[in-house]
Amino acid sequence: MQDDQLTTSCAETGGVWHTHRVSYGETDAMSVLYYAEYLHIFERARSSFIRMQGISYNLVEERGIYLPVREAYCRYRSPARYDDLIWIHAWISAWGRASMTFSYEIFSEDKKNQIATGMTQHACVNKTGSPVAAPAWLKETFGCAAK
Amino acid sequence: MQDDQLTTSCAETGGVWHTHRVSYGETDAMSVLYYAEYLHIFERARSSFIRMQGISYNLVEERGIYLPVREAYCRYRSPARYDDLIWIHAWISAWGRASMTFSYEIFSEDKKNQIATGMTQHACVNKTGSPVAAPAWLKETFGCAAK
Amino acid sequence: MQDDQLTTSCAETGGVWHTHRVSYGETDAMSVLYYAEYLHIFERARSSFIRMQGISYNLVEERGIYLPVREAYCRYRSPARYDDLIWIHAWISAWGRASMTFSYEIFSEDKKNQIATGMTQHACVNKTGSPVAAPAWLKETFGCAAK
Amino acid sequence: MQDDQLTTSCAETGGVWHTHRVSYGETDAMSVLYYAEYLHIFERARSSFIRMQGISYNLVEERGIYLPVREAYCRYRSPARYDDLIWIHAWISAWGRASMTFSYEIFSEDKKNQIATGMTQHACVNKTGSPVAAPAWLKETFGCAAK
Repeated sequence: MQDDQLTTSCAETGGVWHTHRVSYGETDAMSVLYYAEYLHIFERARSSFIRMQGISYNLVEERGIYLPVREAYCRYRSPARYDDLIWIHAWISAWGRASMTFSYEIFSEDKKNQIATGMTQHACVNKTGSPVAAPAWLKETFGCAAK
Repeated sequence: MQDDQLTTSCAETGGVWHTHRVSYGETDAMSVLYYAEYLHIFERARSSFIRMQGISYNLVEERGIYLPVREAYCRYRSPARYDDLIWIHAWISAWGRASMTFSYEIFSEDKKNQIATGMTQHACVNKTGSPVAAPAWLKETFGCAAK
Repeated sequence: MQDDQLTTSCAETGGVWHTHRVSYGETDAMSVLYYAEYLHIFERARSSFIRMQGISYNLVEERGIYLPVREAYCRYRSPARYDDLIWIHAWISAWGRASMTFSYEIFSEDKKNQIATGMTQHACVNKTGSPVAAPAWLKETFGCAAK
Repeated sequence: MQDDQLTTSCAETGGVWHTHRVSYGETDAMSVLYYAEYLHIFERARSSFIRMQGISYNLVEERGIYLPVREAYCRYRSPARYDDLIWIHAWISAWGRASMTFSYEIFSEDKKNQIATGMTQHACVNKTGSPVAAPAWLKETFGCAAK
């Protein structure tokens, strides 16, 4: 259960807190942040997480590793509106052999109100799209030292 | 377990087949349909489903019923690319007392390739956002006659 | 002034009529089609124009020609709303030596109401981004036989 | 020519410098920031401009004034890519009796490279959509004291 132990240790990564301002173009006729926009915002938060580790996702791709989304889930709890400043907490919640999972929590500016929670699971593939084991450098960079 | 029986009967609704052409603006730097766009496409398919029942979602709102998304899930199985024509099969897979669930399957033009599957769960609320039982007219219109 | 004469002859191309259904995700908190979405819709219409000529823009790129947008303009005349079916008339209004211009008119479903007008000017470049003269096959395919 | 003089004085407003990080979802299959996204970014910059004046565009709407876009123009000069940090300079370049114009310049992170320029012209309308003269409080708030 090497894999599970790894998962556990990685769950300890603190993650990143990212802010986002809701634009007019992100709202819909119900005057709230449109539901698909949350996935854009999740992506902004995980890009921010990767930058915080000192690299860009660009570099990951240059090294021949791609992390396409395999699954995405969002639970909408309370709406966000135009001009709201929101917080996104993003962290790696699990590693598989050839995959990884980011989890997200979105909060209001004062962090008193939970707006949404969600996750994205990413396959780890090479340039031709074949699954590959997540390389050690990736895990280390992303704050998950192999034990 | 009235509710469960209802759910079962509604699962029989055939649903709608909707087509969508992938635009350049929907692709990303990986040259594939960006993952958030699937939720836009799910929405197009369920709007199409509602129109097929002879009404517009506009009318639902005019009658004081709103169906905000409470949960969304997508499983990405094979990529879609610019200019691809894709099929989206959308149907109501479950009714709760004050909620309903749409399920989706996306296929390639020849329907041989499954591109994605997913679901959206919708709360049934009034103008002030309070949950209300899904009215009989809504269930009937959406093809789910109460038994 | 070969170029100008060419422009004139190309202005005669009839263009394409493309339909688009306004989705919920394309609207904003003013309950109208958000202004940036018009550029997405222009793109859908010109992709449709290219398909009508019997090829895909994909093929244009495969032949080493890229048509990035150099300028875009839109004049918003009357709003479009959720679930509206709109018409987009798109045609090539001008050719330069290494550029081309698409013009657009958007109408309501009954074509009685003009919703917007606009244009996009496209550079003609090779894979490395350098401007190249629009090749004869491109002009011919796009309905503009060189004189 | 009161109006013209006003325009001149308003052209002196310094405007705002806003930053934006290009997300993966904003890129397209050419690996560059998709052309419609520039209008979203223009909107972010002018919302930021308005916030810098100490109010939110929300408040403008609450006071019964709406500023729908009447015209939008963008000139694309050099591409922006995923993860690029870009600068947007936005300022009010003109006031009409019942309209106003924002101008924009987008630069690379080091401000050495001009990425795009553009403008949006906004009608000044009331809740029913009728044109109204831009009220004095709006002009003052937006940094254009009536002379």
